[in-house]
Amino acid sequence: MGMYEIITKKKRGRRLTNEDIDYVVKGFTEGSIPDYQMSALLMAIVLKGMNERETFELTKAMTESGDTLDLSGIKRITADKHSTGGVGDKTSFVVGPIVAANDIAFAKMSGRGLGHTGGTIDKLESIPGFKTEIPEEDFINNVNKIGMAIVSQSQSLAPADKKIYALRDVTATVDSIPLIASSIMSKKLAAGSKVIVLDVKCGNGAFMKRYEDAEKLAKEMIKIGESAGRRVYAIISDMNQPLGNFAGNALEIYEALKVLKNEGANDLTDACIDLSAMILLGAGKVQDFSEGKKVASETLESGKALEIFKRFIKAQGGNLKNMDSLEHNVKKCKKLEIKSELDGYVFEMDTEMIGMSIVELGGGRKNIGDSINPYVGVYLHKKKGDYVKKGETMVDVYYMPESNIDKAAEMLFDSYMIVDKPIRNNFRHAYAYLDKDGIMS
Amino acid sequence: MGMYEIITKKKRGRRLTNEDIDYVVKGFTEGSIPDYQMSALLMAIVLKGMNERETFELTKAMTESGDTLDLSGIKRITADKHSTGGVGDKTSFVVGPIVAANDIAFAKMSGRGLGHTGGTIDKLESIPGFKTEIPEEDFINNVNKIGMAIVSQSQSLAPADKKIYALRDVTATVDSIPLIASSIMSKKLAAGSKVIVLDVKCGNGAFMKRYEDAEKLAKEMIKIGESAGRRVYAIISDMNQPLGNFAGNALEIYEALKVLKNEGANDLTDACIDLSAMILLGAGKVQDFSEGKKVASETLESGKALEIFKRFIKAQGGNLKNMDSLEHNVKKCKKLEIKSELDGYVFEMDTEMIGMSIVELGGGRKNIGDSINPYVGVYLHKKKGDYVKKGETMVDVYYMPESNIDKAAEMLFDSYMIVDKPIRNNFRHAYAYLDKDGIMS
Repeated sequence: MGMYEIITKKKRGRRLTNEDIDYVVKGFTEGSIPDYQMSALLMAIVLKGMNERETFELTKAMTESGDTLDLSGIKRITADKHSTGGVGDKTSFVVGPIVAANDIAFAKMSGRGLGHTGGTIDKLESIPGFKTEIPEEDFINNVNKIGMAIVSQSQSLAPADKKIYALRDVTATVDSIPLIASSIMSKKLAAGSKVIVLDVKCGNGAFMKRYEDAEKLAKEMIKIGESAGRRVYAIISDMNQPLGNFAGNALEIYEALKVLKNEGANDLTDACIDLSAMILLGAGKVQDFSEGKKVASETLESGKALEIFKRFIKAQGGNLKNMDSLEHNVKKCKKLEIKSELDGYVFEMDTEMIGMSIVELGGGRKNIGDSINPYVGVYLHKKKGDYVKKGETMVDVYYMPESNIDKAAEMLFDSYMIVDKPIRNNFRHAYAYLDKDGIMS
Repeated sequence: MGMYEIITKKKRGRRLTNEDIDYVVKGFTEGSIPDYQMSALLMAIVLKGMNERETFELTKAMTESGDTLDLSGIKRITADKHSTGGVGDKTSFVVGPIVAANDIAFAKMSGRGLGHTGGTIDKLESIPGFKTEIPEEDFINNVNKIGMAIVSQSQSLAPADKKIYALRDVTATVDSIPLIASSIMSKKLAAGSKVIVLDVKCGNGAFMKRYEDAEKLAKEMIKIGESAGRRVYAIISDMNQPLGNFAGNALEIYEALKVLKNEGANDLTDACIDLSAMILLGAGKVQDFSEGKKVASETLESGKALEIFKRFIKAQGGNLKNMDSLEHNVKKCKKLEIKSELDGYVFEMDTEMIGMSIVELGGGRKNIGDSINPYVGVYLHKKKGDYVKKGETMVDVYYMPESNIDKAAEMLFDSYMIVDKPIRNNFRHAYAYLDKDGIMS
């Protein structure tokens, strides 16, 4: 059975065998299967789908294509979280410390931002001195000592996924739930943690625009992880507006510190509590989700999480001095205020456009490898449902000489839709909570 | 609008604009669009289709990607025929002379065989001295003088099709009616003839196994050609058994001579008459199809077609001496007889397998560029419906030392299915005759 026959099978909507899938992943990673055959197969998969078994096998083959992280040196139960990408998401900086304070090892590998979505590693690198690449031994030691560590994702983890993703990215074959699920889960499985919490973003700033797609993706990923012997939970969270009020790298560290000091925005704080509660539940530290939320809230209020966050940053060489001061963080920037031109209520925020405005400011990437500016960003005074008066500031934009400020300002202004009547919807940061049995009550 | 957006459009089942199609054909031919993007688009086209306008534009763009043959130096109305590929098809050698005898210029470019299908150029090259590449001026002069010429297809004709086809061939994106139709018609339009007759083969030895697909392909090609201002007719002909009784290069020239001498097999002779009649009709030489058949038959009977064939071969350097003798043609070969192991009727012939047995003998190609042996081949004593006795010869196999004779013999034996009861079907060499208005009465 060669690649031509495998493409033909999938083109006709038939199932690939496990041998087929292993052959493809191995051959493509080694280079014996050329790009042009792989992209034809990927398009056939996008249009004809894969079933549960095929998706699991693809994930497994990609996981096994490279190194897997050995977490056996970690004494406590290990936990990881993954976000499918959004704007203003700084939850890892709060969730990690909360669960670490509860005897769970938060041993996380993260990625960089691309396009409108930010990246955890970029945000951490806005902290002076912080090292996102440390020896594996130090990573294990830090987790054992402090309860958490976050490092840049190793290049040797799931190289097949890396190569396949790069091809999908240029052949319009990204939007397939089995392909997305297997891509994410191959890295999560290789990263070794026992408990995995998935934050599946849904909305106009997320990859998944529709709830049904987000739910399908979440369910597929849970199935894959559980089949591989992990405990997996997922939150389907709202990305129709940025999470919290700040976007931009250093500004997001600043906002995470606010949450850790119990001064954070409600939506962001609630999201952190939910994600922490799921990890506590998965690790067997609590009996149910509501007990998890209670424990997480108490931990946050006690100040223990803030202490752990500081120790984590210090252990990786970072210096948080003055990062809890907004003035300090933006002292190198100029400020522009985006004002409303009419009285009304914020009906919609184009979240992807807000994310892309950060790219225009220089705080995000158009292409992999672009350098970014850690200081620039936005402070969103107004969010969905808020009342705004004509002439009132909706957004503070912090920019620098290299920023494309005119474009960014225009995008930010355009991203707000103001209406004359109050909004009736009650906004919620999460639409659903899922475990292996489906939606949790 | 870049390639990524074009792939996305087609993936979602939307129509490509003419600008999109031109951009793709130009970019891929020039090399600015990489193979891996093109193959993703091709798979999306295979699975989502193209409408009539898109198919025509694709054909047009491929036609315009290279040279087009200038037939303005030809005084008479020009005609061309195309077969979608089968086993034992030597009709061009009869049809060309018949129409040339009726004041029509048969100015044809042909290809080589690949896989189980034979190629006109390979067959002509079995004639000692015959040149399939001659200067364009000689080509035009020969057509003006004799009424016909057949040359190897120029590399500069529709280079976009050539490059796209090579990619389709290795990415399992061949089986799409819009892609097949545009590929064939781009070359036919570039070759310049006014009247085009398409022989769409249908059956177990053809690319189109099902009648519905063959009809769809025929209709698409007629639409394309008529939109480009040509007169196009199509025959959907039976390829559930080889055409005539001989397959193999020199043996097919031998059998063509038999038809030209009015000693040919009925199915083959009828096929030649039908194709000629359509060209006569398209060229305005007759009022309707049945008059066309009458004129074609009379021309064949008169011996004029044989005379023209001889002049055509001579004009291109060929020497037909003794090629009308079976003994002479196979004098370098050994003969093996495939005998029936039971009494019965030939119920089915696996025509693709018969074609592939020629490849095993060395008379066809597995890969483009393989050299072939002109002498080897088969004489099929028995065809569908024929009665055969136990021990009676079904096939004479002519082979040479380099032939894989054991394999070929096994395939030929296996290709015959013998049943104990007479076959009721009346075999017909053609299922339907189509013009631009649909199936001709």
